[in-house]
Amino acid sequence: MLDQSTICAISTSPGIGAIAVIRLSGSEAIQIADKIFQSPVKNKTLNEQPANTLHFGQIIFKNEIIDEVVVALFRAPHSFTGEDIVEISCHGSVFIQQKILEILIENRARMALPGEFTQRAFLNGKMDLSQAEAVADVIASSNAAAHKLAINQMRGGFSKEINDLRKQLLHFTAMIELELDFAEEEVEFADRSALRNLTEKIENLLRKLKNSFQLGNAIKNGIPVAIIGETNVGKSTLLNALLNEEKAIVSHIHGTTRDVIEDVVNIHGTAFRFFDTAGIRDTDDHIENLGIERSYSKLNLAKIVLLVVDVQNPYPIVKQRIDMIRERISNDQKLIIVANKIDTGIHETIQLLEVMDISDNEKLIFVAAKKKQNLEELIETMIHSVNIEAVNQEDVIVTNTRHFEILKNAHEAIVRVLNGLDSGITGDFLAQDIRECLHYLAEITGEVGTEEVLGHIFKNFCIGK
Amino acid sequence: MLDQSTICAISTSPGIGAIAVIRLSGSEAIQIADKIFQSPVKNKTLNEQPANTLHFGQIIFKNEIIDEVVVALFRAPHSFTGEDIVEISCHGSVFIQQKILEILIENRARMALPGEFTQRAFLNGKMDLSQAEAVADVIASSNAAAHKLAINQMRGGFSKEINDLRKQLLHFTAMIELELDFAEEEVEFADRSALRNLTEKIENLLRKLKNSFQLGNAIKNGIPVAIIGETNVGKSTLLNALLNEEKAIVSHIHGTTRDVIEDVVNIHGTAFRFFDTAGIRDTDDHIENLGIERSYSKLNLAKIVLLVVDVQNPYPIVKQRIDMIRERISNDQKLIIVANKIDTGIHETIQLLEVMDISDNEKLIFVAAKKKQNLEELIETMIHSVNIEAVNQEDVIVTNTRHFEILKNAHEAIVRVLNGLDSGITGDFLAQDIRECLHYLAEITGEVGTEEVLGHIFKNFCIGK
Repeated sequence: MLDQSTICAISTSPGIGAIAVIRLSGSEAIQIADKIFQSPVKNKTLNEQPANTLHFGQIIFKNEIIDEVVVALFRAPHSFTGEDIVEISCHGSVFIQQKILEILIENRARMALPGEFTQRAFLNGKMDLSQAEAVADVIASSNAAAHKLAINQMRGGFSKEINDLRKQLLHFTAMIELELDFAEEEVEFADRSALRNLTEKIENLLRKLKNSFQLGNAIKNGIPVAIIGETNVGKSTLLNALLNEEKAIVSHIHGTTRDVIEDVVNIHGTAFRFFDTAGIRDTDDHIENLGIERSYSKLNLAKIVLLVVDVQNPYPIVKQRIDMIRERISNDQKLIIVANKIDTGIHETIQLLEVMDISDNEKLIFVAAKKKQNLEELIETMIHSVNIEAVNQEDVIVTNTRHFEILKNAHEAIVRVLNGLDSGITGDFLAQDIRECLHYLAEITGEVGTEEVLGHIFKNFCIGK
Repeated sequence: MLDQSTICAISTSPGIGAIAVIRLSGSEAIQIADKIFQSPVKNKTLNEQPANTLHFGQIIFKNEIIDEVVVALFRAPHSFTGEDIVEISCHGSVFIQQKILEILIENRARMALPGEFTQRAFLNGKMDLSQAEAVADVIASSNAAAHKLAINQMRGGFSKEINDLRKQLLHFTAMIELELDFAEEEVEFADRSALRNLTEKIENLLRKLKNSFQLGNAIKNGIPVAIIGETNVGKSTLLNALLNEEKAIVSHIHGTTRDVIEDVVNIHGTAFRFFDTAGIRDTDDHIENLGIERSYSKLNLAKIVLLVVDVQNPYPIVKQRIDMIRERISNDQKLIIVANKIDTGIHETIQLLEVMDISDNEKLIFVAAKKKQNLEELIETMIHSVNIEAVNQEDVIVTNTRHFEILKNAHEAIVRVLNGLDSGITGDFLAQDIRECLHYLAEITGEVGTEEVLGHIFKNFCIGK
């Protein structure tokens, strides 16, 4: 399965930089490097040098000096891939990067495929599959929260959780299969209530992991936030104040913001994905009606709904709007009622809103978006709503769609076991579902898996990793 | 003059990559790195490790693992800057790169200015100023020829030439000043003809260097090539065939290519800067006339003039056009007469062109641009024209505008010496011009120079170098 050829790639970001790093990995990495590298002072070849050392010298090709470089030497198995690795740190011109790559290929190295270095790390047992996948997430993460989850997963946090689950499942299988061996004697080694407890515990764990995906995905791609409210209450102004730039059109004309604008912004290290929506009001304008429909449909996708109301409007109208939205949002969404324009004076609506009943998944915040008054409280509430602060480096949160799909299947299997126990089906049927569940978990860590799955996972990596 | 603070910067190309390298240089580089870096296996700090070694570990900030990294350790004076250097090779997410930079700055490192690492290398005597300037050229070079010149200069080829010149000048000064010491005795230690020989030799060298700038600049920025010819002879088709893409408008309508299009293309490792020009013909169209005027004015800037003629046209007309261009080009330009459309049949014009007189700085090549016939011969001729092949790694060619300006001044000074010798002016006047010449050369290598000059040179570097 493991291709023995020596691979090479530019591992730093493409384009011109002060320096660039070209990575070479495989059993012939050091020999190939020795063919093109010369140290002006040392009489030794790289092959004669100890591991984890740096060497200054020149890349020479056909008697011409291509560049002055520093070469880093790693030896198997103590390297990222588990193979011999030579990293050439050259001047960062695109010409030099390409030239050195060409020379390496001329000396029998091969261009690495996307993610091939990490794939080799996996195949050489340096990390399991979920850790390898996390490497790509670490590189892609653009905010503190997503970064934290990815680093945790890369360092094996997720694998540990999966292995704990597998251990419990194996214990379960052992008990069931012991029963099967003595089936004719109708012995129940594991008393059914103990089995049921264990199954429930496993089902709980799987459900917890599976459900964490919604948060994990939101953290990775941005917490979805819908901004909704009647026209002219200041939605675009609020969004702009939050985005701190003029992406959305701010205007007093009803129905300006016809299209849903999406914008991802990092606030205090958490990414929020904002939908600005068309104003909600009765209108005969067909296009505007489409925009309003879209506002409502986007509501389901949001984890946080910011309902903006104008405190200048009469309370009954404001209350009616709030109740209308309350009907449309679900329990796992957070509704933040943003009472806007408090800078326009003292209005009765403010007093009446203050005494309005607020449920657990609701919050009421008074702001003046235009003057950026009290926005910090709004931001704090948004961050608190998704409980990002509660995400510790130790928490295991599923962020990967492949893992989520597998966990769903594993969970379904364990639910069948639970139902089977309740309906009193025989041990061999139970064992079959357990084995299925075990198989799924092994797919996550890569203990089972086809080359096709691997290919699919690594093809989305960048080249050079 | 040398700022003692420890500086840091991302040294690899900006953006996401598999890995990125953050460079830290200065007397506190290792101590600062030790504050944020932890090795999971080694009990030693980086400060206790030997130079030129690599260390795997974690960047930790406020008890949180930011990334798993490899750290490269260099110790003064054996480093690029001549100071202690720590290079952190981290995962290439923009978030991680920024975060590590932030952490370094929080630990009292300072963001490096553009080129500050190279500037320190210069100030610490690791390289002279012309070598430091070449570092930026090496990074910027985008073709083999420019790269070759830059590498040669970075490795000190240019400095060697300058130092040889200075040695000869010093010898000259020594002789002259010896005379001055014994002025009252009216002794001539150096016989005037020997002095004159030496001055001529120096003048020759300076002129050679000064004149090499035209080629050096052309190699660095692309050899300027003008494509000229009547409308409809296939200039755009030829340019496109050479460019291998559809940048210029190819059309049969007279005067389509009204504007001068410039395009730089690497052909066999040499950059050519093509001007496509408006067709040359008599016309009443005012705008088109402007285009034609521009064609002619561009002619002076070209090192190679490709005059395209259509072999289907009668020989007298073709010959007239050739003679018209011949009048307009100078001796240091190469005129390549491209007889196009040889695929349209056997024409008398072809035969007559074949027996036409061709001077030394001319070439005649028959092509069929549309069918890409014989373009290789044209390309060979172009490359041969600028004598790029003759540029050896040992040849010293001036590519830097600052050096060119200084060499011009130095040359003027030595010409004054030459004239002074001829008109028999006194030794002290000669000595003054020689000292001026010496001073200029010292400016090139940075032995004399103001901070302002340094600032100007390094501000054009990229950050991280």
